[in-house]
Amino acid sequence: MPLDCGRSLGPIEIAYTTFGRLNAARSNAILICHALTGDQHVLGTHPVTGKPGWWENLVGPGRAIDTNRYFLICSNILGGCMGSTGPAGIDPATGRIWGTGFPVVTIADMVRAQALLIDHLGIERLFAVVGGSMGGMQVLQWAASLPDRLFAAVPIATAARHSAQNIAFHEVGRQAIMADPDWHHGRYAEHGSRPVKGLAVARMTAHITYLSEMALHNKFGRRLQDRGARSYGFDADFQVESYLRHQGSTFVDRFDANSYLYITRAMDYFDLAADHGGVLAHAFRGSRVRFCVISFSSDWLFPTAESRAVARAIAAVAGNVSFTEIETDRGHDAFLLDEPVFARIVKGFLDGVAGHAGIDRT
Amino acid sequence: MPLDCGRSLGPIEIAYTTFGRLNAARSNAILICHALTGDQHVLGTHPVTGKPGWWENLVGPGRAIDTNRYFLICSNILGGCMGSTGPAGIDPATGRIWGTGFPVVTIADMVRAQALLIDHLGIERLFAVVGGSMGGMQVLQWAASLPDRLFAAVPIATAARHSAQNIAFHEVGRQAIMADPDWHHGRYAEHGSRPVKGLAVARMTAHITYLSEMALHNKFGRRLQDRGARSYGFDADFQVESYLRHQGSTFVDRFDANSYLYITRAMDYFDLAADHGGVLAHAFRGSRVRFCVISFSSDWLFPTAESRAVARAIAAVAGNVSFTEIETDRGHDAFLLDEPVFARIVKGFLDGVAGHAGIDRT
Repeated sequence: MPLDCGRSLGPIEIAYTTFGRLNAARSNAILICHALTGDQHVLGTHPVTGKPGWWENLVGPGRAIDTNRYFLICSNILGGCMGSTGPAGIDPATGRIWGTGFPVVTIADMVRAQALLIDHLGIERLFAVVGGSMGGMQVLQWAASLPDRLFAAVPIATAARHSAQNIAFHEVGRQAIMADPDWHHGRYAEHGSRPVKGLAVARMTAHITYLSEMALHNKFGRRLQDRGARSYGFDADFQVESYLRHQGSTFVDRFDANSYLYITRAMDYFDLAADHGGVLAHAFRGSRVRFCVISFSSDWLFPTAESRAVARAIAAVAGNVSFTEIETDRGHDAFLLDEPVFARIVKGFLDGVAGHAGIDRT
Repeated sequence: MPLDCGRSLGPIEIAYTTFGRLNAARSNAILICHALTGDQHVLGTHPVTGKPGWWENLVGPGRAIDTNRYFLICSNILGGCMGSTGPAGIDPATGRIWGTGFPVVTIADMVRAQALLIDHLGIERLFAVVGGSMGGMQVLQWAASLPDRLFAAVPIATAARHSAQNIAFHEVGRQAIMADPDWHHGRYAEHGSRPVKGLAVARMTAHITYLSEMALHNKFGRRLQDRGARSYGFDADFQVESYLRHQGSTFVDRFDANSYLYITRAMDYFDLAADHGGVLAHAFRGSRVRFCVISFSSDWLFPTAESRAVARAIAAVAGNVSFTEIETDRGHDAFLLDEPVFARIVKGFLDGVAGHAGIDRT
């Protein structure tokens, strides 16, 4: 598989899960695209953490993305660490773990790999591609690169390019990982170590950006830990400190540090307008894809203005687009949470378009 | 000197600078309080960095805080690393560098040390106490603890308590420092090392919070470094990455990592309402201090709502307070930058109140 960086990769493995049944016309398939730290376990118990799937709030039998009606596919992205080809895998040319010898991949490369999977599954055209955050970037890339292979697109809490502030937060995370002496310039596997401290700091920083200030305030405020008094030291006195430390320490059990470098880099590079002569609308010229663009009012990582820019660009070339901002104080993370209005909009859109696409109710 | 944590400290040293002349009535003294990474070098060439003083935009002859009219005092805070007693100094009990054996200090402790300095200088009552960010916390603490020792107070871009989000960002910075093996549980001086990588990551994270998203966008956008093309690697491709790395690497030359831990902790603990039975207004009951509260519209670290809460609390006990939000897209850092409206308001307030205080023009 040729990559945007000029190198190529192969053979590649893509780990994926499916839910529901593909209908006889092969017309009811929805590709779910996961976010930075997500994976293919959209539903069901996660094999590493033992926790429920990351999108159980939205996806499942009778849910907004109804597995009784649609056939769902969710694959671990290229560069990921849950079974797909990535920096933690083996470089066939050397027989050693790739580490930072792995080529830098882009969102477009991830989509190319997903398209190969869809070919492999014998599906000519997806009914929909749906995803939030970096998953939404993949949705937009699908619509731009392969408009004839999807009927509908649902980009959620995302943007057509990564902002300077978001690049800055990613860079801090990468620096935290690379500053960890256990990182060993990416060759930690060979040293029998893992840069868990650096990766935890990266996760903690990122996690702050996933929540709104109001969400942090409502969840923790300035409440102290159980002992109820200041320690006058550097232990976790405040509940919010303890929460962040927990987020950091549990994350490192399930995620590969090099994968974190590669995937954040792919997001930083994402700029759909730049790939189309600087005009975002040109990414969607002539497209017949039906779009449902969704943002969350308190999301400061991917603010509503970014989604509005996407919706306007599609409208500017007479595309078929609806745009909704969901009122919530839960920040970027809202797309993963139980947000009834959000779920209703996704369900309404998909079921409405499914009628046009000739997908029977089961 | 007794401390809030229950321990005591002494003898203490406070490094300070003065500018202008104290008048015969000793009535024209202004205490300038510095922010987290500031110091006493408010004006003039910094002895370590060789750069101009940190508040040259606002302070100086003929400037908003006019050294021709006022006598300025700026001291390095207790716990700092520019000459005042702090964790990089020597514990007299052991003859060793304090490190994390230094007691945790609070904003109120910093103010107690400043008051001892003011005593030492033979000044009974300050004309004003002025400061931004953590400096503004000290201003509020002065007004609450020692209302009879100041005539006017100018808390800028600050809050009466540190928010959950701000605690979270500080905690990430501390974790980055403490994750650095060169930190050696705070005893790095004895190991001949310094946790520069961890401190740089802490600074980088904090620096993002000092700028608005718009400021980062205007300054850097998605512009690439000189070579103008993606490296498809993990070097600093984007200008914003290079800028942040520079901020991190220059900071470590002038700042002590343990000081960073202590000062961020002091900010986290700051909660003026909690110290007054949970009612912020009670911190200002009966106060005759004249307040000028100032915030900046794009400051998301200390948003306008925090300043408004301070102004309302003062007004609720019939205090003398004006409150202004300055329109700017430069974020929290605006208080350090050339902002003409901001400077005019500070000048107008100080010069107006100086008339009431009987301070002659020189």
